[in-house]
Amino acid sequence: MSDDAIRFDLPQSAIPTAWYNIQADLPRPLPAVLHPGTKQPIGPHDLAPLFPMDLILQEVSQERYIEIPEEVREIFKLWRPTPLLRARRLEKALDTPAHIYYKYEGVSPSGSHKLNTAVPQAYYNKKEGVQGLSTETGAGQWGTALAQACSFFGLECVVYMVKVSYEQKPYRAAMIRTFGASVTPSPSNTTHAGRAILAKDPNNTGSLGIAISEAVEVAATSGGKYKYALGSVLNHVLMHQTVIGQECLQQMELAGEYPDVIVAPTGGGSNFSGIALPFVHQNLTNGKHTRVLAVEPSACPSLTRGRYAYDFGDTSGMTPIVKMYTLGHDFVPPPFHAGGLRYHGMASVVCELYDQGLIEALAIPQLETFEAAVTFARSEGIVPAPEAAHGIAGVIREALHAKETGEKRVILFNLCGHGHFDMSAYNAYFANELSDYEYPQEQIDAAMANLPEVTF
Amino acid sequence: MSDDAIRFDLPQSAIPTAWYNIQADLPRPLPAVLHPGTKQPIGPHDLAPLFPMDLILQEVSQERYIEIPEEVREIFKLWRPTPLLRARRLEKALDTPAHIYYKYEGVSPSGSHKLNTAVPQAYYNKKEGVQGLSTETGAGQWGTALAQACSFFGLECVVYMVKVSYEQKPYRAAMIRTFGASVTPSPSNTTHAGRAILAKDPNNTGSLGIAISEAVEVAATSGGKYKYALGSVLNHVLMHQTVIGQECLQQMELAGEYPDVIVAPTGGGSNFSGIALPFVHQNLTNGKHTRVLAVEPSACPSLTRGRYAYDFGDTSGMTPIVKMYTLGHDFVPPPFHAGGLRYHGMASVVCELYDQGLIEALAIPQLETFEAAVTFARSEGIVPAPEAAHGIAGVIREALHAKETGEKRVILFNLCGHGHFDMSAYNAYFANELSDYEYPQEQIDAAMANLPEVTF
Repeated sequence: MSDDAIRFDLPQSAIPTAWYNIQADLPRPLPAVLHPGTKQPIGPHDLAPLFPMDLILQEVSQERYIEIPEEVREIFKLWRPTPLLRARRLEKALDTPAHIYYKYEGVSPSGSHKLNTAVPQAYYNKKEGVQGLSTETGAGQWGTALAQACSFFGLECVVYMVKVSYEQKPYRAAMIRTFGASVTPSPSNTTHAGRAILAKDPNNTGSLGIAISEAVEVAATSGGKYKYALGSVLNHVLMHQTVIGQECLQQMELAGEYPDVIVAPTGGGSNFSGIALPFVHQNLTNGKHTRVLAVEPSACPSLTRGRYAYDFGDTSGMTPIVKMYTLGHDFVPPPFHAGGLRYHGMASVVCELYDQGLIEALAIPQLETFEAAVTFARSEGIVPAPEAAHGIAGVIREALHAKETGEKRVILFNLCGHGHFDMSAYNAYFANELSDYEYPQEQIDAAMANLPEVTF
Repeated sequence: MSDDAIRFDLPQSAIPTAWYNIQADLPRPLPAVLHPGTKQPIGPHDLAPLFPMDLILQEVSQERYIEIPEEVREIFKLWRPTPLLRARRLEKALDTPAHIYYKYEGVSPSGSHKLNTAVPQAYYNKKEGVQGLSTETGAGQWGTALAQACSFFGLECVVYMVKVSYEQKPYRAAMIRTFGASVTPSPSNTTHAGRAILAKDPNNTGSLGIAISEAVEVAATSGGKYKYALGSVLNHVLMHQTVIGQECLQQMELAGEYPDVIVAPTGGGSNFSGIALPFVHQNLTNGKHTRVLAVEPSACPSLTRGRYAYDFGDTSGMTPIVKMYTLGHDFVPPPFHAGGLRYHGMASVVCELYDQGLIEALAIPQLETFEAAVTFARSEGIVPAPEAAHGIAGVIREALHAKETGEKRVILFNLCGHGHFDMSAYNAYFANELSDYEYPQEQIDAAMANLPEVTF
């Protein structure tokens, strides 16, 4: 590899053949997941109405590697392996001795890393004879990816899109429809849950929690024809994303370097896990010492300001109770422009790693992330999604710190998606309409007072 | 290469080192370009106020290969070589024995092939000491690409965007601004040309012709600080795009096949030329017999229904007079959704090839192109730009014809860009708001009556 190489490409034969399951290597096992009614640990059968058994078994598996089906790898070939690039122009713009590498998942046809899990989820549902999938979407990346994956496997797809997003982002809905899925603004008249909300408040503009309730209801009342799909948080979803980090291990070898620090934004935790877990594996079992840094928005700081406690996964308290860093299930984040990072909790795997001191976390305010996004776009050409921009802001902090200390620090991050459907946020930034937001401590404390009582 | 390969990737070392200039191989030379005032052939010095001398010399060069500067190839490494894919899922959906290959230029950070010429244009202007570039944009692909290229080289960039597009596509303007360029809706108060139009009609929503006048005026009146850049039509622009076809030649070899037919949409001719000219070169000099098919919209059918005659390049008659297939410079195409294909004329190179019987042409109506786009998206995952969809519609016709004749036909096309900023057109298609449009012959005849009188 020449000294001025920018891109480190792998052949299609290098697409990983198995997902990495960190449950096999965690120093202590993940906390039990509890039933929202009984508050006792749930088993695989409790999840069967919503998910196909293959995915439920992956959710609880302790095997280190789970084989990727050939049918899934065939579809991965449309865009994988994704490129790893060295951001030499950004390094120059920052005048830093750091070496900055980024994995670019935006080349996926759906435009983000979400397709990595949408494809296997659609595959296993098809295999079980399911007719269609229901899901919710906020920013729209996940709804797009699932619609696309369903179209690949001939599955129907029903997407509930938070009404305010649906109205603000008509192009997202158009893209989802292009793949043959239906998109319904939520709350809607198509479900009991939606109708109940509209009866109380006909002008309700929706929330992720309401959209989840509608999507879950469609699956739960379909007599098995439909199942439900989630785009982050769950163990099997995080595991599907490990193809990213596994490819990075090979590509960093091509580049002749090894990361000193990995930076990734965290909303539900799937992007972060995708790039980080294979390197955490190296730390845990292979004597490596890569720092792993989770970046969250100051306006939704689950890891850095939340509490590690049992809480509901949704706002209405219908999902299982999970131990996680949470801001409280009735926490309502302010309307900042990274829809993918507005979750009150965090994936169990990420929380355990954080609680065990195996990863670090950092909250960054909104304006710094857009400044970072623009710096990146002008150096490297790619306009990042606002979610990804949080990671870039963290990278720039690391690179500038390396400049202060005069250190050649090797930084790796995952550019999880492009911002082509988020340009209204950039318009607002250029018009000086965006602001920072620090959530007041008393509001966090108030939300904490409403955590479910769990004796388990 | 295994029998079921989908993607044929090249290493960065395979990025072409020279552009291919078809002027060296044309059976007869291109017709002279005439001065709009004297109507006599123009020389390089006539173009010097608008373009740097390196580009003017490329415009008239008869050398077969012109070396790509190392600084330009360095930037190409951000996304080149672009992938070549075999559309196996589309083949299956069409149940055709044809083999369909597509080159995907949408992976460029600006989202289309336009960056291939924007980068060298910015480079040569920077080299000549120019402070900034002015240009016009309709759909926005070209404005985005030039803004990005200027940001790479530290040039200022002024983009005049047709007002109706500016208002319909605020996200395009946001992306152009992200790269540090200014975007002005045209007609504007910033130029004499714009003010004159607004004085007559304050509600004028603009046209490409008006935007060209404004951009040209900025360059012409800047005392050399600014020059002007064009995204298609000119010889040097078409030549810059030949990196596409040159890579395809290598990639088809990897695939172990050679195209029987190449299909590409034509607006100004740069996408078409990019993929086709290196194969036309093989036809002309190497005994190959690839059919080359230019696809244009039925609503703007320059090649198939226009006349090969001298005409102005713009609507107001200020640019040089070029011999080309034209619908008349005051032809106003109906508002169909492929802004990049709404030009009344066509690149001189493409016209000569067509007139000499070296390429074929075909006009396809709008609804067939959107149907093709959706079929492609559901098979291959990528939502194409409406311009690219014209090529896909042509490919599908070829593939279905091969099915009828039971023939294994190898088809290659260039997917020149994604449709992420064109989703309003898809929304209109799904809402049954789009229609076909055949331009009435009497209107074409009327526009022809207004061609400039040229005795040359």
